[in-house]
Amino acid sequence: MSEAGEASRAPSKWVFTFGAGRADGSAVDKDLLGGKGANLAEMSRLGLPVPPGFTISTEVCAAYYDLGRTLPDELKPMVDAALDDVGRITGARFGDIENPLLVSVRSGGRASMPGMMDTVLNLGLNDQTVEGLARRTSDPRFAYDTYRRFIQMYADVVLGIDHGLFEEILENYKALKGFELDPELGAEDWAEIVTRFKALVETEQERPFPQDLHEQLWGAIAAVFGSWQNARAIAYRRLHDIPDDWGTAVTIQAMVFGNRGDNSATGVVFTRNPSTGANELFGEFLLNAQGEDVVSGLRMPQPLTEAAYGASSNNKASFEAALPQAFAELKKSCAKLEKNFRDLQDIEFTVQEGELFMLQTRAGKRSTKAALKIAVDMAKEGLISREEAVLSLNADQLDQLLHPTLDPSAKMTVLAKGLPASPGASSGEIVFDADEAVHMKAQGRDVILARVETSPEDVQGMHAAVGILTTRGGMTSHAAVVARGMGRPCVVGAAAVHIDLEHGTLEAGGVQLHKGDIVTIDGSTGRIIKGRVTMREPELSEDFTTLMGWADEFRRMDIRANADTPDDARQALAFGAQGIGLCRTEHMFFEESRILALRKMILAETPEARRKALATLLPAQRQDFIALFEVMAGRPVTIRLLDPPLHEFLPHGDVAIAEVAEAMGVDVAKLKRRIGVLHEFNPMLGQRGARLLVSHPEIVEMQARAIFEAAVEAGKALHDRVIPEIMVPLVAAKAELDIVGERIAATARAVEKERETSLAFQVGTMIELPRACLMAGEIGESAEFFSFGTNDLTQTTFGLSRDDAGRFLGEYAEKGIIHHDPFTTLDEAVGELMQIAAERGREVRPDLKIGLCGEHGGDPETIVFCEKIALSYVSCSPFRVPVARLAAAQATLRSKSR
Amino acid sequence: MSEAGEASRAPSKWVFTFGAGRADGSAVDKDLLGGKGANLAEMSRLGLPVPPGFTISTEVCAAYYDLGRTLPDELKPMVDAALDDVGRITGARFGDIENPLLVSVRSGGRASMPGMMDTVLNLGLNDQTVEGLARRTSDPRFAYDTYRRFIQMYADVVLGIDHGLFEEILENYKALKGFELDPELGAEDWAEIVTRFKALVETEQERPFPQDLHEQLWGAIAAVFGSWQNARAIAYRRLHDIPDDWGTAVTIQAMVFGNRGDNSATGVVFTRNPSTGANELFGEFLLNAQGEDVVSGLRMPQPLTEAAYGASSNNKASFEAALPQAFAELKKSCAKLEKNFRDLQDIEFTVQEGELFMLQTRAGKRSTKAALKIAVDMAKEGLISREEAVLSLNADQLDQLLHPTLDPSAKMTVLAKGLPASPGASSGEIVFDADEAVHMKAQGRDVILARVETSPEDVQGMHAAVGILTTRGGMTSHAAVVARGMGRPCVVGAAAVHIDLEHGTLEAGGVQLHKGDIVTIDGSTGRIIKGRVTMREPELSEDFTTLMGWADEFRRMDIRANADTPDDARQALAFGAQGIGLCRTEHMFFEESRILALRKMILAETPEARRKALATLLPAQRQDFIALFEVMAGRPVTIRLLDPPLHEFLPHGDVAIAEVAEAMGVDVAKLKRRIGVLHEFNPMLGQRGARLLVSHPEIVEMQARAIFEAAVEAGKALHDRVIPEIMVPLVAAKAELDIVGERIAATARAVEKERETSLAFQVGTMIELPRACLMAGEIGESAEFFSFGTNDLTQTTFGLSRDDAGRFLGEYAEKGIIHHDPFTTLDEAVGELMQIAAERGREVRPDLKIGLCGEHGGDPETIVFCEKIALSYVSCSPFRVPVARLAAAQATLRSKSR
Repeated sequence: MSEAGEASRAPSKWVFTFGAGRADGSAVDKDLLGGKGANLAEMSRLGLPVPPGFTISTEVCAAYYDLGRTLPDELKPMVDAALDDVGRITGARFGDIENPLLVSVRSGGRASMPGMMDTVLNLGLNDQTVEGLARRTSDPRFAYDTYRRFIQMYADVVLGIDHGLFEEILENYKALKGFELDPELGAEDWAEIVTRFKALVETEQERPFPQDLHEQLWGAIAAVFGSWQNARAIAYRRLHDIPDDWGTAVTIQAMVFGNRGDNSATGVVFTRNPSTGANELFGEFLLNAQGEDVVSGLRMPQPLTEAAYGASSNNKASFEAALPQAFAELKKSCAKLEKNFRDLQDIEFTVQEGELFMLQTRAGKRSTKAALKIAVDMAKEGLISREEAVLSLNADQLDQLLHPTLDPSAKMTVLAKGLPASPGASSGEIVFDADEAVHMKAQGRDVILARVETSPEDVQGMHAAVGILTTRGGMTSHAAVVARGMGRPCVVGAAAVHIDLEHGTLEAGGVQLHKGDIVTIDGSTGRIIKGRVTMREPELSEDFTTLMGWADEFRRMDIRANADTPDDARQALAFGAQGIGLCRTEHMFFEESRILALRKMILAETPEARRKALATLLPAQRQDFIALFEVMAGRPVTIRLLDPPLHEFLPHGDVAIAEVAEAMGVDVAKLKRRIGVLHEFNPMLGQRGARLLVSHPEIVEMQARAIFEAAVEAGKALHDRVIPEIMVPLVAAKAELDIVGERIAATARAVEKERETSLAFQVGTMIELPRACLMAGEIGESAEFFSFGTNDLTQTTFGLSRDDAGRFLGEYAEKGIIHHDPFTTLDEAVGELMQIAAERGREVRPDLKIGLCGEHGGDPETIVFCEKIALSYVSCSPFRVPVARLAAAQATLRSKSR
Repeated sequence: MSEAGEASRAPSKWVFTFGAGRADGSAVDKDLLGGKGANLAEMSRLGLPVPPGFTISTEVCAAYYDLGRTLPDELKPMVDAALDDVGRITGARFGDIENPLLVSVRSGGRASMPGMMDTVLNLGLNDQTVEGLARRTSDPRFAYDTYRRFIQMYADVVLGIDHGLFEEILENYKALKGFELDPELGAEDWAEIVTRFKALVETEQERPFPQDLHEQLWGAIAAVFGSWQNARAIAYRRLHDIPDDWGTAVTIQAMVFGNRGDNSATGVVFTRNPSTGANELFGEFLLNAQGEDVVSGLRMPQPLTEAAYGASSNNKASFEAALPQAFAELKKSCAKLEKNFRDLQDIEFTVQEGELFMLQTRAGKRSTKAALKIAVDMAKEGLISREEAVLSLNADQLDQLLHPTLDPSAKMTVLAKGLPASPGASSGEIVFDADEAVHMKAQGRDVILARVETSPEDVQGMHAAVGILTTRGGMTSHAAVVARGMGRPCVVGAAAVHIDLEHGTLEAGGVQLHKGDIVTIDGSTGRIIKGRVTMREPELSEDFTTLMGWADEFRRMDIRANADTPDDARQALAFGAQGIGLCRTEHMFFEESRILALRKMILAETPEARRKALATLLPAQRQDFIALFEVMAGRPVTIRLLDPPLHEFLPHGDVAIAEVAEAMGVDVAKLKRRIGVLHEFNPMLGQRGARLLVSHPEIVEMQARAIFEAAVEAGKALHDRVIPEIMVPLVAAKAELDIVGERIAATARAVEKERETSLAFQVGTMIELPRACLMAGEIGESAEFFSFGTNDLTQTTFGLSRDDAGRFLGEYAEKGIIHHDPFTTLDEAVGELMQIAAERGREVRPDLKIGLCGEHGGDPETIVFCEKIALSYVSCSPFRVPVARLAAAQATLRSKSR
């Protein structure tokens, strides 16, 4: 530590000046100067009117902490010299009684941390210089007002004296004098306030307010560096993944004043509209005010342009009308900055007695809709390339555009919050039972299915519902995964909601709702709201289509969707999916007539009886695949054979068991015995996937036959050959795939013979166990494709059940044990296993097609990794397809630029 | 395939002759000549009296199959030449009517496959040569008897005609003529039988029995090669892991006859007693008989030596007495062979008219007890080195010596068979409830605890029982693991046993037993036997101690034991453990008073209430550790902090819940709610290990305090410092270990202060998740030691719950998907993860201590791998410690010799 400290104190340039059309640094020096300092230097270089100043680099911040919160001695002469430079440019001098230089001292890190660190304004005033300022400006009221503002801020930031105590003095004084508003106070009043403020400081810290301007300056610099480690800043960094060792820079800049009369002003401008993306100046300003006044909200800001004035009900003059010359200069500056930075800029400016000063510029935050429009417009304007346009967007945020959202202006009673598991919002009648959901949907009613947790039995009901709410489970619980796949809004793990099935009630936030009451859920925020809320329907703009088209040009990986039904498949195609990467056949079995046949199969005692039961499923299953193949019209379709353990298809609980036993005409005891035999301690690690298929070859035969017969039928309808990709789940050893694969091949031969045709198909495997990754060299000999099942691979690599992890993953994130939910963003160890599998698989089969079909397929960070290991495709929920398309294009572009 | 076929047919030496003191090959050529052929060559080289012959190499077997079961043409001249050589040595000639050469045609692979492949004897006879043989031997009866034997065998092996049809003809003839036994038949009778046999062959195959001797010879050679792929042989190879492509050799050798009168004989001799290991010839013989007669068991064999004659009730003369000259020569040959092969030999010999011939030698199978004695004796005799003595033993078999066994001569009614989960046998009263087992044990009664499956709640009852029986679960189910740890005989997964708890009965094999009835279980074979069976207690011989001492000298790795109690620890020390590698603290909590406190902790609503409940556990837990440290007297002790999920400590089922609620004075509903909250879908992948310790730091504090206070106390008593090794289970990320480690360190500081002492201790982690292996480079920065938890690592690497795998692992083994139970012998993928972890851990901490403490620690094959990756120690059940000591020594020796 001390060595590193020494290193960072090695002789170096620590202070960087800017102003008068020159600067030591530029916009590229963000690491050293922080965002604010670098952009001030850049603006100065561009010849924009920037008050002169200098930036103390982030290296000094490191030195400050290495020295135990002490500023290095070598800094002083550098700061003094820079201060002299500023004086030379402004004509004023720090501490000059005749023409005192006033400065601001501001923080500025590599990454924006708005409001997290400290600032001191108007520094350079004491009992002498305040008089000089009064004389120089011929405005004693301004001088004393500025002095009292300084004392208050300095005392708060540097001396740690409660801000409220100063407010109290001011309020008392105003009450005493019968004043209502600050403007009513005159120079004498402010001078009196200054006296009282100084007295307060002396009482609080047992020494007078510092009159030594250099003491003030160094105190402020140290305070700003010190604020890097305040609790707020630390928490913010943790939340935003900003490293603690980056540190902040400190920028010291000559003050300019927007409160010097009606030809002075202060304001904020965006070079384009950050809400709509329209190419028009957008912002607001206040005449005769300082920046704080805009923020404080005491005065109503005025519109910037005449156009905005016309469009609004604001009856105050626009900046364009009030200060036309300054506006013209601002407009020019905005154009210059946007051209220079090639991005939307968010700019702070001040006009001091008619003269425009630029105080800050940075990339402007914008809505997703605006981001799209700006990117497309700028590319069309030739300001940026199409590649840059594609790269400029946050892929994750695209999701916002694809779902209905709550009207933000609507009033609402939020009952509770859960995890935002599947985006979008919906309103409907509460229902607690999946069958009832189906029933009510058939009557044309909108229902929200509320369950403690869901299981595959509930899938039909989930499909029937307009939204799903669970009180248990995490972001990758059954409910969450299925809902995302269906594009249904979903809130999970709402622990504060209590469902009482017996009485058919739901209680949350002290409110009790009954079955049939209306509730609204917001799957984008996790909110559960009483009653109906106005919605905004999603609308995909032309800009969206344009930009996605560009993305598709640049993208190397294919994007497929996880889709189990023709509806899902149609949705996926609408969102631009190029195929189906995962069709989970088990979801097809939960229709009433089918699950009965499946249960008969499970209860059968012999392979023959099992075959007979399965035969009744064949026509329906075949029809499923015909429909799917027809919708996909020749695009690749990967069908996964039955994966879940058989007990998932049997009823749970005495009542359900009795019902099913009656419906099936079997003995309750027999059914219970079979359920008992099939019970597993850890179903996730039990007899499922390949293990089930190896021991129940008749299931493989039925499913393969349905697939092949459907391929023949659909092929005829499409006048094109359908080449299904059949996927064997949960393989741990090559021999499992060989055994199941041989059954598939034998079925193909039989169908070929019966139909007098030849079939083309591929047999591949999910790679979803650590062992499968390590044995990929063997498995690859038998697999025509790999598809990473990253959900299960994450579960097994971590030894972590996604259904049980909800209980502690929150605490783990809080304690910094994990930085991302590994079920959302691929974990590095899981990634390493995938990389090993890809390498070993390709070693034995260089043209091996490798995809990913877990929940991670729609996560941009994961997609970057998939590009790195050169996967052929990723497959995700239909509603994530646009996100994946964009993220994949960005990944390709970034990998090329590396 | 065809290319490989061509390659194996490349010009090569395919036929290897032996005889008359010379041979083309020797004992080292087993791969080419098979075991039998190589050893015949070796014996010939040693100048022993071996009938001359030649071996067709295993390469020809490959060629035979590559050519579609056809012998290559190039073979014929080679065989003809070799046959001429044999003729030259014997003075006879194949097909010579005056002095016909008779040969045997036998299989012989690289690995012994006794009785699995075919043999043809007495080949070389037809209607002409049989007359020549009769004349030459002046013994027409012998000639025709030999001819009929040949026809019968040839028809069976080469022509595929049912053996029984020939027996029928013979029996019918004997009945017709009033004969009882074969010796009563004369030459004419046998000539008549030959006629009838030939007629049968002609009827069966619609052509006469082949008179062309070369046709006979080639038919026999092809038949022997063909028998490599018969069903029996294939099944045997699968069972014994013998590769299908090894193939068999064929040895053709001049016949000698032990049935040429009373100066002829045939027999088997072991160079030492294979049962006791005593250095004495051991074997039996028959006068005037062929080898088949010994095997057929129709005649009672006679003792070999005078000493054996004296010791037995057999009143027939010994070989030593009957044929003293042949005996003397045999004795000399035995000595020569043992000296040459430096191992116990199992030899077949024949005496033809007074002349001894050696027909086969091979390493003799022996009992474990004999193996020990022979190894130690041979080393003492200077025949082999101590290293060779250690290497000569099968470590796995050592286990037999350490447990009581059933008297093999006892009569018993076997009711059912389960899996042999923990070796040893015991008898006791059946009891179905763990508490009752404890209760009955307190009354001095021996009980066998019979359960469907066991859970941690049953541990006290398991300890109280003399044996454990479960009807579900596999070799690594809870019952199996705990029983092995305790050294209790245990049979698991006995699916044919039905337990009816309601009526207190157990039904198996059609027998119904009631609670209190006596049953015997044999944990070495899985047998469940009605009533009591006589036992043999284990007795560790002086040879055992000597050999284990030698092993300890050669061994690099330490051997520790998994021991949870002072009793376990004492047992481990008695078996030579050097420390405790795993003390599972949860097993300490199941005593009645403790589990109550633990349950109070689990039901507590606040950390404070949890602390209070835990405080009542502290004294008992401290006492546990004091006792353990004192028994171990300064040897290393690794204590694992609480691992299982909390719900394992709560009752299951309404009755138990009601009981516990009453005992605790809490509301049933509250208890049920808490059980509901703690329920996990996949407990194996849930909130346990480090995850539990991170969220319940008060558990860490209590356990660490108990450990440290015990270390202080025990240190005083031992006048030595106790340095506990504290192990954090189920770590997936460094931060988990850091958080728990900091709690441990803080507790240490507190205890140091209170006791005014300084503590020494280590904090390390189980490596039992794939992620922990891959992240070992980070985890190693914080861990002072790693201990591989291979049970859980296998479960997660395979995505396979050991409790659920029983249902299909059997089928997987049958189908060749797995070759070993991965929970017994380390899987290669799990091994690769361990290797990665070891490398990465050592990269950041070169002196990292790494051990293994899973069930695999007692498996010799796994130990070889542990030596390869240079682990510091393996830790296993106390009863496996001797096995591990020996296996580790062998691993060291083998790694050196590589």
